[in-house]
Amino acid sequence: MTGMTLSLAVRVYYEDTDHGGVVYHANYLKFLERSRTEFLRTLGLELDVIDEKYGVLFALTEAQVKFRKPARFNDMLVVESSLVALSGARMSFRQHIYHQSRRELLIEAHVHLASIDRTGKVKRMPHSVARALRTHLLPEEHA
Amino acid sequence: MTGMTLSLAVRVYYEDTDHGGVVYHANYLKFLERSRTEFLRTLGLELDVIDEKYGVLFALTEAQVKFRKPARFNDMLVVESSLVALSGARMSFRQHIYHQSRRELLIEAHVHLASIDRTGKVKRMPHSVARALRTHLLPEEHA
Amino acid sequence: MTGMTLSLAVRVYYEDTDHGGVVYHANYLKFLERSRTEFLRTLGLELDVIDEKYGVLFALTEAQVKFRKPARFNDMLVVESSLVALSGARMSFRQHIYHQSRRELLIEAHVHLASIDRTGKVKRMPHSVARALRTHLLPEEHA
Amino acid sequence: MTGMTLSLAVRVYYEDTDHGGVVYHANYLKFLERSRTEFLRTLGLELDVIDEKYGVLFALTEAQVKFRKPARFNDMLVVESSLVALSGARMSFRQHIYHQSRRELLIEAHVHLASIDRTGKVKRMPHSVARALRTHLLPEEHA
Repeated sequence: MTGMTLSLAVRVYYEDTDHGGVVYHANYLKFLERSRTEFLRTLGLELDVIDEKYGVLFALTEAQVKFRKPARFNDMLVVESSLVALSGARMSFRQHIYHQSRRELLIEAHVHLASIDRTGKVKRMPHSVARALRTHLLPEEHA
Repeated sequence: MTGMTLSLAVRVYYEDTDHGGVVYHANYLKFLERSRTEFLRTLGLELDVIDEKYGVLFALTEAQVKFRKPARFNDMLVVESSLVALSGARMSFRQHIYHQSRRELLIEAHVHLASIDRTGKVKRMPHSVARALRTHLLPEEHA
Repeated sequence: MTGMTLSLAVRVYYEDTDHGGVVYHANYLKFLERSRTEFLRTLGLELDVIDEKYGVLFALTEAQVKFRKPARFNDMLVVESSLVALSGARMSFRQHIYHQSRRELLIEAHVHLASIDRTGKVKRMPHSVARALRTHLLPEEHA
Repeated sequence: MTGMTLSLAVRVYYEDTDHGGVVYHANYLKFLERSRTEFLRTLGLELDVIDEKYGVLFALTEAQVKFRKPARFNDMLVVESSLVALSGARMSFRQHIYHQSRRELLIEAHVHLASIDRTGKVKRMPHSVARALRTHLLPEEHA
């Protein structure tokens, strides 16, 4: 078991900020998802291909997010993702967002997803997908 | 020919604002679309029903937007829509966004849409849809 | 102690949906915030006035969200908010999103906020704000 | 006079798409702005520095956007920006969005901005900013 932490660099643009002068809280969830998408891509898993080939989508079932410090316009962030749990139709990610140059922790998140079909019913992941994920699982105690 | 102008009240929330303290420019396009959706609903046209029943969607082909004055957090806005042109697979709206209490014009827009199928190809509107729209057309010179 | 649960009706527009055919997960957080904003407004608390008058903003510190079932385009939702904890610079809301006509529970959330100044430092709420909130607190066991 | 066209690569994520299976129309305006921001950065112009140092912001005054073809989830796009007009307090960009691998033109835009102060009043650009911009102006007939 090797484990992997994917790091994605994200620039904060005007679209991400709010009237308080910082990143609007819901937009951190977009950054988290971009990083998870790139995590999967690194393993050769493209979400649109999995959808077309197997009729399988991944839906959030739960998110726990701690907002430690705010990011601001023009900041460069690093969004890290580790896969920390995996079963037939479930996976969980531990994720962190850092300010790139200051290396400050801004956001901590624990995100749970289920594999579903187009009608929303839980559906086991295809074997090839589960296999690719399993080799990059980083159990919680090491994350 | 009667014509109709639909007015939708929209509250500005934190999600709509940006770091400049005003509504983020792209978000006015969301307000414009909410108003067009309500225009159609008033005519008995529900976009999800038209999609399911006829396989027809409406896609923007062109938007001309003038940003006259900014809206701010907590402002109540009025978003007006008039249908000003209509043909077999095309329709155009003239739209205005006002500050509700100050009655100031904030945004002027001219938005053009095409009816398409799920693959993106232009497809004539169903007759019942075209008929409902025609009775509420407000030709440009009266808008 | 009276307690209060605020209910806000929210229509799902195209802007809220994603390629999976359902509401994009991060957008539920926007609906939750709209409802909290209206909760405060009902108590006479306007966020822009509190910002200008006292230099106090409210920032999310933590959100726990369970995504039970998806909402779809054109759905009417009800977003409920109850204030379940309150201290000098902290408040917590218990929130639920229901499908209006089916009365199905879609989203459960527990959202924690801190009062801060414009630099992001924790700052006690003004007395008048705390007093207004206290009368509408609904302790967790009743929520 | 040299002129410059800035090209920014943009990945389409779930957050950008809508229930029609394509990028939600207002989100192309976000991509256009990211590219303009990078255009300015390439010239050494950082919007947050200009705001802090000179009290100058740039606000959209008008946008004309043609939506030729849709982008879809997971597509890689190229967003090109050329500065085609410049005066004391105004600048205009000609922008195009292409599908990266298919080199198809998806979006054409003409975007006009004004330099303003924090109250929203038009305010001439600082000399250093105007000078940096002028060297990269690409008059319309060459764009």
